[in-house]
Amino acid sequence: MNKILIINCGSSSLKFKLFDDRGEAVIAQGLVERISQQESPIKIKYEEQVAKFTAAIPNHTTALQFIFNQLIKLGIISNLDEIQAVGHRVVAGGEYFDRSVVVTEDVMNKIDELSELAPLHNPANLTGIKICKKLLPHAMGVAAFDTSFHHTVPERNFMYSVPYEWYSKYHVRRYGAHGISHQYIAMQTAAMMNKPLDELTMISCHLGAGSSICAIQNGKSYDISMGFTPLSGVQMATRSGDVDVSLVSYIMKKLHINNIDEMIYILNKKSGFKGVSGISADMRDVEQAAADGNQRARLAIELYVNSVIRYIGQYIAELQGIDAITFTAGIGENAIEVREQILKHFNYLRLTVDHARNDVRGEKRLISGDNSSIQAFVIPTDEERMIAMDVRRLLQKIQ
Amino acid sequence: MNKILIINCGSSSLKFKLFDDRGEAVIAQGLVERISQQESPIKIKYEEQVAKFTAAIPNHTTALQFIFNQLIKLGIISNLDEIQAVGHRVVAGGEYFDRSVVVTEDVMNKIDELSELAPLHNPANLTGIKICKKLLPHAMGVAAFDTSFHHTVPERNFMYSVPYEWYSKYHVRRYGAHGISHQYIAMQTAAMMNKPLDELTMISCHLGAGSSICAIQNGKSYDISMGFTPLSGVQMATRSGDVDVSLVSYIMKKLHINNIDEMIYILNKKSGFKGVSGISADMRDVEQAAADGNQRARLAIELYVNSVIRYIGQYIAELQGIDAITFTAGIGENAIEVREQILKHFNYLRLTVDHARNDVRGEKRLISGDNSSIQAFVIPTDEERMIAMDVRRLLQKIQ
Repeated sequence: MNKILIINCGSSSLKFKLFDDRGEAVIAQGLVERISQQESPIKIKYEEQVAKFTAAIPNHTTALQFIFNQLIKLGIISNLDEIQAVGHRVVAGGEYFDRSVVVTEDVMNKIDELSELAPLHNPANLTGIKICKKLLPHAMGVAAFDTSFHHTVPERNFMYSVPYEWYSKYHVRRYGAHGISHQYIAMQTAAMMNKPLDELTMISCHLGAGSSICAIQNGKSYDISMGFTPLSGVQMATRSGDVDVSLVSYIMKKLHINNIDEMIYILNKKSGFKGVSGISADMRDVEQAAADGNQRARLAIELYVNSVIRYIGQYIAELQGIDAITFTAGIGENAIEVREQILKHFNYLRLTVDHARNDVRGEKRLISGDNSSIQAFVIPTDEERMIAMDVRRLLQKIQ
Repeated sequence: MNKILIINCGSSSLKFKLFDDRGEAVIAQGLVERISQQESPIKIKYEEQVAKFTAAIPNHTTALQFIFNQLIKLGIISNLDEIQAVGHRVVAGGEYFDRSVVVTEDVMNKIDELSELAPLHNPANLTGIKICKKLLPHAMGVAAFDTSFHHTVPERNFMYSVPYEWYSKYHVRRYGAHGISHQYIAMQTAAMMNKPLDELTMISCHLGAGSSICAIQNGKSYDISMGFTPLSGVQMATRSGDVDVSLVSYIMKKLHINNIDEMIYILNKKSGFKGVSGISADMRDVEQAAADGNQRARLAIELYVNSVIRYIGQYIAELQGIDAITFTAGIGENAIEVREQILKHFNYLRLTVDHARNDVRGEKRLISGDNSSIQAFVIPTDEERMIAMDVRRLLQKIQ
């Protein structure tokens, strides 16, 4: 029977989800980590089972070959021809792609060209696409972009107030990220509310190691906290979010750093929870330390909650009111206290949190009170399922 | 009779206002521009008259000497001993100064040290202080800082999510600016509303060539759009306001710029209205061009209005509701259409603008409708008067 495979290649990891031909039931899913290091842990979940392996995986090609072999060995598929189509998550689609597309030579060239905008991600994504073309020559390739959903953001929200030529010549603008997740969340929220998507105005809070907030007007992306790159917006696990550019030049002088890329590295990798708390990039560790009385850990959480409140406030104003706020991703789905603090702040708008309903991790659920002016939800995100829907649509188109 | 002189030294300009001994009635005021250029225009207003001069003014000392001579020649004062105290506006007070202080050797050293944070302003401010100490040896010197009002901003609002040492060792934090103006606006708004200042929660919009928005809770500064330096926050005449730091490194590569200071210069001097419109740094010119159909001029105004709306929305959320919004400074006092666009956006909160009342320039006035949920005002700012109040208070203390 035909199947749809979804691939998400990181710089040193590879995640996959195998769906049925309708892109609905998950047949298997798994993860290869620490690619190119000596020993890579590999996990494959299928039916009620989890198969775990350790192997030498020097590159993404070996990773995919390993997975394909196991899918056959474990009896999940009988041969590779069953895989009818492969959907790939691609981080940067620039101004080229306002939707998912069938992979062609031209599409691959553009993904390559856009590596400038996502130097860590696009090359890895492209590698995944190329390997699948080789290993699965009969399968249709589809590229789904994390920026496409944000193509509806109006000019007044995506332009920076910098020399105009930086946009017209060099395409400097707000691109945003997590579009696949935000789109999925918008659809799911509409379904939860029993409301047509194009009548839904809401804020989607994708809070994970990378966090972004999306203003959604009539089901479409209207503004997004991440900017030209995923460095800006709310603070994150190791990323600073918004800062004053002047402090970069000031610190470069103080620390005798000559190369701005070194500063970008610190702002990407040594800031956020990690930089402020000095403890960990993981919210759970920081929460534990704060509970144990660590002041910098407490501050890191306070800054995080505050930066989310700032964006929600900004987007409520931009949208002139909202129907719903939905939380998703690692922190959004699991950090009960963080969600409560954020939502309680909006009591002044008669938004109420239901304490008991909010006591939930990783489960799709309404968490606002019955009389709340704005409905609040937790909805686990599923980017692979969102991509699978697009793949299915494109498959139907060509059939 | 004793008088209070207020001095505001820019890098190439000097403004003054001479008050009576209570710091209330303005006896004379004036301006020297283009100091150190070949010909400096000088203007002195007193009673109903305006005296205009052109002279070679090589430096701030000559500028002040010229003014003192004219004050005597024009019969405004009979000798310099009448000037009992001089208040100086100082841009950066860092974490040292939470209020105006009598100038001492130590104060001067700290202003000098803080030049790092305001390299264009503090040195000029300090020059003014030193000259007055020399020319008016008997007058008490007072330094009033543009950052002092923001000392009440809580940690969660002033900290950046960067390596903690950048704060603990190098004092990287949000300092804000326009504090003297925001404080004056808060007092005036309270008076207009007949409300005790410490019960007033509001947003002050200082919209001029430099623009900043201040969240004020119970009469005290709670958050401020300008950050570590006056580069960030809302967009301005020539300043970008908030941008993604990653675009700085990207553009440096594209334009082969090696020094980040060159980028900071572009973001400070060639961005904002000027950079986006390509026409002018002056809102009036940009408005005219937009009215004539220029698309980039229209965009520049749209981005400006939008960036103010974003901060107002953010601060309404931080403050959990507000009593008032007040507009001040060049654009805030005079750009009728900009004010109307900003306020109309908040109709969803039942804030209403009174179209006829809002048709006003540079006049203290309520501009919201009678049934508006939030009161809106135009109030001309008067930083010199605010400083004079502080000088008067300090004079009384030592007498």
